[in-house]
Amino acid sequence: MKYLVTGAAGFVGSHLTDALLARGHEVVGLDNFSTGQDRFLEEAGHSDRFTLIRGDLRDGFTLRRGIEGVDAVYHMAANADVRGGLAAPRVDLEQNTIATFDVLEAMRAAGVSRIVFASSSAALGEPEQVPTPETCPIPSQTSLYGASKMACEGFISAYCEGYGFEGYAFRFVSLLGPRYPHGHVFDFVKQLLADPSTLRILGDGSQRKSYLHVEDCVRALMQICEDVRPAIRGPRKFQVYHLGVPAFCVIRDSVRWICEELGVSPRLEFGTGNRGWIGDNPFVFLDVQKAMSAGWAPSHTIESSVRETARWLVANRWILDRRR
Amino acid sequence: MKYLVTGAAGFVGSHLTDALLARGHEVVGLDNFSTGQDRFLEEAGHSDRFTLIRGDLRDGFTLRRGIEGVDAVYHMAANADVRGGLAAPRVDLEQNTIATFDVLEAMRAAGVSRIVFASSSAALGEPEQVPTPETCPIPSQTSLYGASKMACEGFISAYCEGYGFEGYAFRFVSLLGPRYPHGHVFDFVKQLLADPSTLRILGDGSQRKSYLHVEDCVRALMQICEDVRPAIRGPRKFQVYHLGVPAFCVIRDSVRWICEELGVSPRLEFGTGNRGWIGDNPFVFLDVQKAMSAGWAPSHTIESSVRETARWLVANRWILDRRR
Repeated sequence: MKYLVTGAAGFVGSHLTDALLARGHEVVGLDNFSTGQDRFLEEAGHSDRFTLIRGDLRDGFTLRRGIEGVDAVYHMAANADVRGGLAAPRVDLEQNTIATFDVLEAMRAAGVSRIVFASSSAALGEPEQVPTPETCPIPSQTSLYGASKMACEGFISAYCEGYGFEGYAFRFVSLLGPRYPHGHVFDFVKQLLADPSTLRILGDGSQRKSYLHVEDCVRALMQICEDVRPAIRGPRKFQVYHLGVPAFCVIRDSVRWICEELGVSPRLEFGTGNRGWIGDNPFVFLDVQKAMSAGWAPSHTIESSVRETARWLVANRWILDRRR
Repeated sequence: MKYLVTGAAGFVGSHLTDALLARGHEVVGLDNFSTGQDRFLEEAGHSDRFTLIRGDLRDGFTLRRGIEGVDAVYHMAANADVRGGLAAPRVDLEQNTIATFDVLEAMRAAGVSRIVFASSSAALGEPEQVPTPETCPIPSQTSLYGASKMACEGFISAYCEGYGFEGYAFRFVSLLGPRYPHGHVFDFVKQLLADPSTLRILGDGSQRKSYLHVEDCVRALMQICEDVRPAIRGPRKFQVYHLGVPAFCVIRDSVRWICEELGVSPRLEFGTGNRGWIGDNPFVFLDVQKAMSAGWAPSHTIESSVRETARWLVANRWILDRRR
């Protein structure tokens, strides 16, 4: 099969690209390199089944060029800076909601009708039901990022109903693993490498979070949308899956694992309250039974993912120092 | 109080404008008259507490002028053509989702933080739970209109969390009453006045629908957002209410009432299937206990609303003949 992967030079997109190529597929990768990294595509670049398009989704010509002739689209490109939403709210609208709509329209024009979408647990706001299943009540959004992702899901599902598209949305918890470009492990390792004596933590450290290894994530996308796809197609052509591990940690645990990996014993400076920032959900824990019933299971624990990520960041300090 | 009503010359907006003026408020009405009608504002035009701005929401200058100095915004402007979505999908994105985002941004710039939003039962797709409460599961969207409205709700709730906005979204069933500009009663009356011998019906007539009188709808908006507002404010500043009557009819019932009002006995030509068009929900029936617990109750039945609407259309044939 031939796939377009948007955001192919990003954290998830590059792992997905590698995994699709490893399965023998052709991949067209599209990225504007606003946050994507050339180094993430070094491995893919060695394959003659990989084509890279440097350009912006929001340029119609680039998008049409990327979609031409593919069997399906893995739409991973997004503004992933959840915390930055309040400083520039239009970014989430434009780069997530409108850009996804543009992808749908370009697909329709090109006769491509299968889309796999990277949604987020952030689109669930602060659910009362924890662990949170796909059938949870309509959320009150707590971040512009979450609102923009849920809006994408809505438009994709409307395209499934109205134009016969086949859509898969995966709401995943925060991911960890090699090429991890931002988030709390990134922030902590960066701080500790600069000054091992002190670690400042947003919030009181009691936030309970679930983390998934990026390799487990991309395996779920492929298993569900390729392997078990025929079995799960019901009357509705839009399917949602929650992805995470059936466990959670508290931020204080993660701090301990990171400090052990780095061999440091900093003084910890906690903030107040159980939210790191406005929109931070103090308890992220998804019910992943639906994905597991489809034959998928995560292979990494949260602890091993945090530790591996910390080691990768130490070995790849360039990413901590990059301008963007 | 001083309110901005967007879409003030529309079906809901004009009734709301009249009702707010009757309560002694000042109203700034904004409308681009793409579907709004001057005649709907004849009554409002006699009040010195009413100001009309002819212009488009999507013009920043017009929008800023409308919001300047108001206490809250009743955002009723929208593309309300649910069936037309598939022919021009970007209309719902632009006129509903992006326009609402623009309203939120203009409010933030002007220091106005209270918004009342006209959402729709269409944003619930085809819910399994009927009557459908506000706490129903995240829907799979079945129309671009529904998707665009749910996206608006998401952005409004994110503004409530992130910027301290106070937001109210009302998902209402289809409305009826004077000034009714489109929908099945409109279509049927128009057909029967042109040719009383035959009536073509989309779908097999078995669709079960709930209808609310527009006067009951605007009373709910005012009662909940003005009168009982202090009592219902919880930790979350975003509130959703379902509005409808605690009953439903089938389209065949409505056909009978309309024919009786018009004194005609046409041959009925039904379509096939229980959907009038792609995205038509064959069973619309909302659980309205939450709104009723806040002290509101509808005063019209579905039958009286259908009959009154048919009579109003017969007495106001200009609306059947208008170009837009």
